[in-house]
Amino acid sequence: MQTIDKRVQALRLIMEREGLDAWIVNGTDPHQSEYVCPRWRSREWISGFSGSAGTVVITKDQALLWVDSRYFIQGAKQIENSCFTLMKLDTPNVLDPVSYLAQTMDEKSKVGIDGATLMVSAKEKMEMAFLERGVELISCPDYLDEIWLDRPAVPNTALLELEAGVAGFTRLQKTTMVRLAMVQKNCTYTLISSLDDIAWVTNLRGNDISYSPVFLSYLLLGTDKAWLFTDPSRFSPDLLASVGEDLTIVPYEKASETIASVIKESDTVYCNPEKTNMLVSTALGKAKIVTGRDFTTDLKACKNETELEGMRRAHLLDGVAMVNFFARLDTENPQYDEIAVSDLLLQQRLRNKGCIGESFGPISGFGEHGAMCHYSATKESSAKIEKNGLLVLDTGGMYEFGMTDITRTILFGEATEEQRHDYTLVLKGNLALASVRFPQGTCGYQLDILARQFLWQNGMTYFHGTGHGVGFRLNVHEGPQVINTKPIDIPLKPGMILSDEPGLYKEGKHGIRIENLVVVQEDVKTEFGQFYGFEVLTLCPLERKLIDKAMLSKMEISMVDQYHQWVFEELKDLVDAEAQAYLRASTLPL
Amino acid sequence: MQTIDKRVQALRLIMEREGLDAWIVNGTDPHQSEYVCPRWRSREWISGFSGSAGTVVITKDQALLWVDSRYFIQGAKQIENSCFTLMKLDTPNVLDPVSYLAQTMDEKSKVGIDGATLMVSAKEKMEMAFLERGVELISCPDYLDEIWLDRPAVPNTALLELEAGVAGFTRLQKTTMVRLAMVQKNCTYTLISSLDDIAWVTNLRGNDISYSPVFLSYLLLGTDKAWLFTDPSRFSPDLLASVGEDLTIVPYEKASETIASVIKESDTVYCNPEKTNMLVSTALGKAKIVTGRDFTTDLKACKNETELEGMRRAHLLDGVAMVNFFARLDTENPQYDEIAVSDLLLQQRLRNKGCIGESFGPISGFGEHGAMCHYSATKESSAKIEKNGLLVLDTGGMYEFGMTDITRTILFGEATEEQRHDYTLVLKGNLALASVRFPQGTCGYQLDILARQFLWQNGMTYFHGTGHGVGFRLNVHEGPQVINTKPIDIPLKPGMILSDEPGLYKEGKHGIRIENLVVVQEDVKTEFGQFYGFEVLTLCPLERKLIDKAMLSKMEISMVDQYHQWVFEELKDLVDAEAQAYLRASTLPL
Repeated sequence: MQTIDKRVQALRLIMEREGLDAWIVNGTDPHQSEYVCPRWRSREWISGFSGSAGTVVITKDQALLWVDSRYFIQGAKQIENSCFTLMKLDTPNVLDPVSYLAQTMDEKSKVGIDGATLMVSAKEKMEMAFLERGVELISCPDYLDEIWLDRPAVPNTALLELEAGVAGFTRLQKTTMVRLAMVQKNCTYTLISSLDDIAWVTNLRGNDISYSPVFLSYLLLGTDKAWLFTDPSRFSPDLLASVGEDLTIVPYEKASETIASVIKESDTVYCNPEKTNMLVSTALGKAKIVTGRDFTTDLKACKNETELEGMRRAHLLDGVAMVNFFARLDTENPQYDEIAVSDLLLQQRLRNKGCIGESFGPISGFGEHGAMCHYSATKESSAKIEKNGLLVLDTGGMYEFGMTDITRTILFGEATEEQRHDYTLVLKGNLALASVRFPQGTCGYQLDILARQFLWQNGMTYFHGTGHGVGFRLNVHEGPQVINTKPIDIPLKPGMILSDEPGLYKEGKHGIRIENLVVVQEDVKTEFGQFYGFEVLTLCPLERKLIDKAMLSKMEISMVDQYHQWVFEELKDLVDAEAQAYLRASTLPL
Repeated sequence: MQTIDKRVQALRLIMEREGLDAWIVNGTDPHQSEYVCPRWRSREWISGFSGSAGTVVITKDQALLWVDSRYFIQGAKQIENSCFTLMKLDTPNVLDPVSYLAQTMDEKSKVGIDGATLMVSAKEKMEMAFLERGVELISCPDYLDEIWLDRPAVPNTALLELEAGVAGFTRLQKTTMVRLAMVQKNCTYTLISSLDDIAWVTNLRGNDISYSPVFLSYLLLGTDKAWLFTDPSRFSPDLLASVGEDLTIVPYEKASETIASVIKESDTVYCNPEKTNMLVSTALGKAKIVTGRDFTTDLKACKNETELEGMRRAHLLDGVAMVNFFARLDTENPQYDEIAVSDLLLQQRLRNKGCIGESFGPISGFGEHGAMCHYSATKESSAKIEKNGLLVLDTGGMYEFGMTDITRTILFGEATEEQRHDYTLVLKGNLALASVRFPQGTCGYQLDILARQFLWQNGMTYFHGTGHGVGFRLNVHEGPQVINTKPIDIPLKPGMILSDEPGLYKEGKHGIRIENLVVVQEDVKTEFGQFYGFEVLTLCPLERKLIDKAMLSKMEISMVDQYHQWVFEELKDLVDAEAQAYLRASTLPL
């Protein structure tokens, strides 16, 4: 029997022991992190499927894996020759996992799930779906632990502290802000489970998850006391002493029992049901719960002046690295594969003082790979770069005082008319969004069309968001702000950083994406109210050989020229001597 | 004692008799109609306040009227010298009526309301708010009836039937469509309370509410039987015979008891909780309820080809009326007040064969009146029109086979630079929206910015929606489709008619609005999917003296010229001989 089938069989033995008719593995960690560290890659362990999204359901006689269209091929391949059946989400006659369980389980069946991976809001939705046939959802211990013998430990990478000169506010100032918001909601405690929220409010950074400087933890904040649940061995003696002034450090595994002992029935606890799992939620006992987005989420979204200065500095250094990289990149006689190109850029980034590494796994897709939105080059797939093609290069640098996220589409050899046309349409969208002025209260969904309108007019579009929120020396994807087509009711506010990244993906042909980061800034105030606009942070020339000037309005030409002039002035004294010629040529007026 | 105070006292006697501590009058009718017929103007009867929105709460010792900012002045004036206190919504320290009751009533108080004016969804929200302090919400009979001696009767205007040649589908075809949707949801009945939905599905029209050709009724549709609850005396013998083939006619007052006798516990009933009141909802007893938007709402939103042809014909005739009106309007030596202008237009409309009247109360606002978004001229307010000013004229015609809704901003005398600048910005927005191409699935909130972007760029905006849905020979405001800033998740579909009406309102100076109706049409289909666009229905020249050509792009100039060319070609053989010169001059290329 294959390894995977043995694992499923072992799980079924536990299910039988516990009287469970089905077991769900959603593959998330206890904190709803976007990227999951190896310890919680349980979906992969039980099924062999390594994608970033999917749901496993094991019943007495079935093993099912649901994946979305991104993973139809990979999912099928990875479960081949195992007991698993692939369920393709959003295809005709295929129910989603919850509806499947609600409709196919016998009445009064018991469905189990690891309570640490079941969020309060998800539990409510599932229970509602299960109600009619009396199927019971049971929040259980993590039974996989018993059979996953070589399971990776909870990570406990060393922590470091951001100075107030980098973070803008001390930990005490930040906890005070949160406590103020908490008291205004008549709450006595707030329980925070979201890892980047905890990293932000504590001014601490770890290295538990690739490209995400967070650390596994929960934070319980009362009006005058606070508990940080994370491995105490992560702290140096000095750091422990300093952090100990504000927070009581308790091991991660003791979170539930400590919370249960601290919280009284008379308390009112604020928490985010989308981010709080049943393991810790149960520990709140009979206390009154007030729900909403974590206070920290809104506080960290609007970057303070110190953070913005750090971000500008990071972008300046990153612009130097980009230009030094471009100057070294041979686009006429390319001798690279996709990975070699992103490595060449990383080398240039690492020359910058304060650069820690990359802010996310680089995307380097040449030709038709560039047209695959979720493509990430592996050693096996990494395509050789040839003349006459486009490379989509989406990368970012992590700096001690900020981070970047930039996409440039690079021409190797000669451009076709179609490539120039497509690139210019994407560029027009990027410019229209960057230059918009909008009144206070405007949400991302109102602005999204600015980046898409020229593509739409040509019967084209892209199937990803236009802009995501960006953290400060934290996660490259950070909410709540976003610019996309969905009706997400989050007004954009000064200090929020977003990406501006329209694209175009023609299957089998080429991909194009242009991404700059922008920050919301106050603009004019008139009899009609306060208006906002964007300040562009990203400093890097565009691919001028792909710009069809005839398609640009005078205003757009002037915007490109002004942008390039700014890039030139900012970088000219900082780039390598051998990069001067490239910088000058690439930033001349169109 | 004043009349109002006597009414409040009389109500308090009933409250005491019934053991109620408070009584709510929300002033809606039993069908959530936008305009309320005199019988249900209970808010006005009890308080003296005649505005279109507000809430009255009577307690043992207080009489409170909540109004929004539109009605702060009018509300205060109309309750002067009565026992009422004005509560200004959305001002600091003023609770909304529900929160007020939830926070100020004694524990276990009883709050009563006429169940016919309390929708299921509103009841749930109020009960949730009242939960904490055990305040009880009681859905009561309409006790005002006992003390409102000269209360107007339930209207019972004569009904007429739209021929299938006008409506596109017969009543049987429409009820079959609804039954199909009903069966797909596993429902045995659907209860429809929304008056324009009932008018649409029955192909009947009445005249119960000003400018809204609906008739007071409920409709209960089963898989093979159907009941229409409305006064049988409204039908001519012939109509009764014809309608009787499809529907059993039962008096309006018998709705509750008939529904209760028809619906069994084993039935599943579909209804819209936003539109279904407690009076009829209670009659459903223990049947299973499935909730959602009425099936009819989505079916009537997408106009069929016959309806679209009727709408085009109505717009053609309406264009003739508009041009004949403009040709007669003396803008150099005006001798009118605001009402005289809209009367002059109505005269021209009524010359059209098939024109029934206006599709809504005309808005004619000159100068600073035009800057008041909700202004409606009365005999007292009607301003004399003078030279050198702008008139906002927002009117519509109701035809036997369609309806129109058009706003033109008319210049009297000479324009200022500011007026030309403002008008041209509004025009650019109107053109940008009308010419957009967008993929299937796009919602109104994504398009809204197209109409606002040029104003925003100039630090200006308008505080109303950009586009509302429009009915077919029915209500001029019709959902679910809408184009505004709110995240309303309704994809635009072919056949939906919307207004395109950006504006600009400068307090004390002038108002500007340009409104055309557009219909969603299929456009190209590409590898990226199906795209849609708008067909403009409205045929009427723009105010060329207010257009600053230098502010328009080549594309925009060409759009205006093409529009005017189309208007000229369509109308040239139809307008009066004395209007030919005006038509020619007003539609020449810019």
